[in-house]
Formats: sequence, C-alpha cells, structure tokens
Amino acid sequence: MGDHPVLFIPGPTEVDLALREIMAMPLLGHRDPRFVAVVQDVCQRLRALYLTTQHAAFETAPATALMEAAVRNLVPRGGATLHLVGGAFGERFAKIAKACGRRPEVLEVAMGQAHDPAALRARLQGGAPVAAVVITHNETSTGVLQPLAALAAVVRECQPDALVIVDAVTSVAGAELRFDDWGLDFAFAGTQKCLALPPGLATYAVSERALARAAEVEERGFLFDLPKAVKDTNAGKTLATPCVPLVYALQRQLERIELETLEQRWRRHGELRDATLAWAIEQGFLPFVADDAARSPTVSCLDANGADVDALAKRAADAGFKLDKGYGDLKGKAFRIGHMGDHDRARLDALLTALAR
Amino acid sequence: MGDHPVLFIPGPTEVDLALREIMAMPLLGHRDPRFVAVVQDVCQRLRALYLTTQHAAFETAPATALMEAAVRNLVPRGGATLHLVGGAFGERFAKIAKACGRRPEVLEVAMGQAHDPAALRARLQGGAPVAAVVITHNETSTGVLQPLAALAAVVRECQPDALVIVDAVTSVAGAELRFDDWGLDFAFAGTQKCLALPPGLATYAVSERALARAAEVEERGFLFDLPKAVKDTNAGKTLATPCVPLVYALQRQLERIELETLEQRWRRHGELRDATLAWAIEQGFLPFVADDAARSPTVSCLDANGADVDALAKRAADAGFKLDKGYGDLKGKAFRIGHMGDHDRARLDALLTALAR
Repeated sequence: MGDHPVLFIPGPTEVDLALREIMAMPLLGHRDPRFVAVVQDVCQRLRALYLTTQHAAFETAPATALMEAAVRNLVPRGGATLHLVGGAFGERFAKIAKACGRRPEVLEVAMGQAHDPAALRARLQGGAPVAAVVITHNETSTGVLQPLAALAAVVRECQPDALVIVDAVTSVAGAELRFDDWGLDFAFAGTQKCLALPPGLATYAVSERALARAAEVEERGFLFDLPKAVKDTNAGKTLATPCVPLVYALQRQLERIELETLEQRWRRHGELRDATLAWAIEQGFLPFVADDAARSPTVSCLDANGADVDALAKRAADAGFKLDKGYGDLKGKAFRIGHMGDHDRARLDALLTALAR
Repeated sequence: MGDHPVLFIPGPTEVDLALREIMAMPLLGHRDPRFVAVVQDVCQRLRALYLTTQHAAFETAPATALMEAAVRNLVPRGGATLHLVGGAFGERFAKIAKACGRRPEVLEVAMGQAHDPAALRARLQGGAPVAAVVITHNETSTGVLQPLAALAAVVRECQPDALVIVDAVTSVAGAELRFDDWGLDFAFAGTQKCLALPPGLATYAVSERALARAAEVEERGFLFDLPKAVKDTNAGKTLATPCVPLVYALQRQLERIELETLEQRWRRHGELRDATLAWAIEQGFLPFVADDAARSPTVSCLDANGADVDALAKRAADAGFKLDKGYGDLKGKAFRIGHMGDHDRARLDALLTALAR
C-alpha cells in the first residue's frame, strides 16, 4: 500500500493505530451475546455523542444511505422538502430527495456564506408548508458551519410540523451539536470524519416525533426502515450483518471521546481552526469564509490567493502530509485542510511549518 | 474481545490473519489515484468471480441493501415479483419487495426441498407476467442449493421479459454460479460468507438487460441507483466513501481465489459437504436435505435426531470451534455447520472429531 502520508483531508481522516488494530480482530458472529452487548453499548454511547435522550443507532453504510433513509422515512412520497444549500453537499442532498420521488425546494446562499435565520423565517412564513427542512450543518466543500441552533429554532417557531433533518457528517464529534436542546429530528454522520475511524458505518440520532412520522410513511423499505432499525439495533440485533470489527472500533473511540469529553473535543477542533487561520493570514492566504462565526472548526477552506495549489500539496507530501486541493469549482483556487478527528496542535503545526513559504 | 472460537457458522466466516491484517492499514483518501486503481481492479476481478463479461461492482453495505436495490431498480412501483421460497431468507426477500411497494407473489416448497423447474414452468405459463423472478440460490437457513441454472432457463423460456434476480449470498465463491451462461440478471453476496472476509461490503453482478430496465424505473434512489453506481464504481469513483480497508482486503482475497481457481474452490466446498455428510451418517445424524443434488456445498443442516444441540455446541466450543444451533423453527432440532470460505479438510476434521460421540 506504499507510503502513508498523514491525512489532513476532510475525510477519510487519519486513524490512530490503536483503533486500526481493532480492525484486524478475529471475527465473531453478530448474534454472539458478546457482540450483542457491544451493539447495545454503542447505541447508548451514541446518544451521549449526539446529546440526546431519544434514539441513536448506526448502520453499515455510507452516510449517503442515511440521507436517502431520511427522505424515504420522514417525507411522504411527493412531499416537499426545503434544503438550505450553500455548497456541493447541500445540493447533493436535494438531488437525493428528487431521486426518491420527493419535491425538493432550495434556499440558497453563495458558497462560503452562512444561512441567515431571518431569511429562513421569511421563507417558512411566506411559503407553502414543507415536510422537512434539510440543513447541512458543516458544508465540507467550503468550510462553512451553519448556525444550526438558530436555524432549527426558526423551523420550530414557524412550521412546528416540519422535521429538521441535519447532515452532520463533518460536524458531529468535532463541532457543537445538541440534538435535544436544539430540537433536531434526524442527524447523521459517517465514521471517517470527526470520529477518526475508517469509513464503513454511519451513526445517527432520531427524535420520537420523527419515528412517529416515519410510521405513517409508506414504502420506506426494509434495511433502512427507521422505526424498526432503531428498535432492533438498540436491542443489539441489527437487521443485517454489520461490519463487526468497525463496530468494536467505534465502541473504543466513543469511550475515548468520553474520556476527552465532548466539550474539550469541540474546543480542540476550534483551536486547530484558529491556529490554521492565524497561519493562513500570516502567509497571505485568505480564509474562503469571510464571516468569523461561520468558519468551520473541522475543515478550513483557504483561498490560495494566486499561489500554486499543486506546489503547496507537493510541499505537504514531501513532509509526509496530505491536504486537499479544493472541491469542485474551487479546485486549484482554494485548498482545504481537514483538521478533524484526533489531530493535535503539534501535528497541525508540523504540517503548517512544512507549508510555510 | 476474549477467546476466539474458529467459526463454522454460516457467516460471518473465519477470516485468515493475512486478510485481517489488511484491515489495520493506514487510511488513504478514496479519491487517491492508488485507491481508484484498486476499485477498478476489484470490479474487474468481480466479473471473473461471477463469470460475467457484463457488469460487476460492490457497495459498502450489507447484502440486504442490494435486495432492496434490486427491487427498487429492476421492478417498477406496483410491479409483480415471483419469489421462489423454501426458507427464511427467501421469505425475507418477499417482505423486502412489499416494503418497497412492489407486489410479491410466492411459489413455495417445504423447508429442505429444492424447487422443481416444472412447477416454475407451470406457474409462469399459467400465471400473469411478472417483472422479475427472485431466487435464493443457497437457502442458508436449511442448507438447500437450488437448481439455479435450470430455474433460470425456465424463466428465459417462459417469460423472456422477466428478470432473474439471485440472492447468491452464501453461494458465490463457494458453489457453482455462472452469471452469463445461466442468463442471470442480478446476483449479489456479502463479503462475510464464502469470500471469507469481514462483513461490510456487498458485491454484485448485473446484466445489460437489467441496467436498461433500471433506466426506465423511477424513484430508484441515489446511492443504490444501479446504472450510475455500476458506471461510477467501474471508473474507480464510488458514489460515497467506501470501507477502504475492506476493499483492499477484497482485492487480495479475489487474487487468492484466482490462484486457487474458482473450479477448485467449488470442488473444495463440495468435498467439505461430503465429508460432513459422511460423518453425520456415521454419527446417526440425518441430513435435513433429503435430496442429494440439493445439498448445499457451503452449509450443512443436520437433523439432530434427538441429540442435545446445546451439548453439541458446547463440545464444539470446548475444542475451540463455533457451530450454529439451528435457524428459526429449526432451533434446537437441527444444527448447522457452515463450511464456507477458506476452511480446509484438516480444520473441518478437527471440528468433526471433537463433535463425535
């Protein structure tokens, strides 16, 4: 598999050896009582991660599968969804809703900008009711963290029947997210982002209200039938064979996060963002996100300001690191440093020093 | 994770250390050219595994997700499917079709019996047209291998427009399956069965005809949109982040299977079945499957004939092995020995010796 550069891309993220070693464990059956207990324990720890006393579970699938599950379970066929879009991943979620036979509408801001709760209020008060509002908490393509608490509060206030569906793929375990306090209904993430595990599982939290809604929706499928999946997984009995080694690794990582504490983990991510920004300004790079409050603590998108992004990436590679050369339209114009997961300041500083002109 | 008994259950199967070690590899990005090449190589090797020159690919998901994908892609909403049922997994597939808003009909045989091509012919000639016939190649709950070639030929003959969808979860890489020669349209399997890898991926083959049909079906979703998934995966660009370490392990295992040769691998599985049967008869256990030709080469279901199944399982455990105590209604009455994957005769003999009265 050749040389391994330390990953500072926005996922998959660098995985500690202690967690990777678990991946090599001898297999056991997924109905083995020892594994059943692990699945139950993981569900309980996921509730702590999402800060919910409602429901949490996981699936052996990419987070994209949970986008589809959210649409098929929480929005009736032909029902309307309102997508808060400001980049590639928000756009993609709207496409998924359409591919599942729903009617997505889009409320868009320019790339690099946060959504304004007042604009959402105007839309929800002036427009037709929607079954759900879909928010990409952290837009990975541009490094914008949306003001999720304020946006969710507007939904609760203006259209109390609309569910709040949150793509938390690159926020959970890296940025503050309070499922119950903020009145969210469905939030999900893959393991290969702020959880700093290999890809292969997607975790989620779901509200009582959302499960009640799902029970009324037809043709929601089998594997991702949320009411059944939540119940069975919390009983330790997944509907299909899960990726056993990765579930063990997830359990260990959730224990480690509890030791670090969630608050300290959010703070550490914020410090990595701040250090990256200070370095960028010093080096003459511009943060792609102008608004201080909207800058993601998990991924920094930096306008190269005319610098050669390929040369930057090469300098990183020569020092044993990998960064990202910009997503979609920003390729070659902006670069991204994914400082999510288990990175610490020393490792980030080593990257930034190597990149300095 | 405690003591590890060698797994002789019908999945997950025992995984060689050489493959498990790959699971602990340092991560790399899924858009890294090195990984893109691995994904393309895996797709090509999967075509060899399924014996097709048409299309093959994989998803990061349980095989159950591909049952749902098959229904949502290959059968229009409200369309009819005919399920050849003879046990728990065939029944479950019919439930999945219903949960996706299709109209499943069932052609049933008693548990432990093979389907009769003549009965299928009578049903297809006498009944309404169906969009697809769904066959569980190897019914894991009872250890029956269906005469897939003959059944598929009947479909082709009687209803040439019906697609043949095959649950090959516990057959591919353990029992003969010839995708092109037998005129199949969609076949799939998880990695944790005859491929002897950890669970987490599902592989599949799909025909040109099936992809053309899918292109006409609406609301087939995003992640499991087969025409797009096949095209993107074969170009090395999965639609979402795959379980990178497991894809590497799959590549290695497909190389190993090519070295063993597929024919020898089928033969080895057949020999393990024959050895298990000879031992069972000697020990006074009855094969649950009466018909010689229908006995699965990957899992043997044995009527305990009054013996205490718990005591048998304990004897296996004391010797460092795990067998299965019977599925569903057969629990405690029949036991199953899963001899699929990388097991050899010496290891099976060690188990059988430990179990001998």
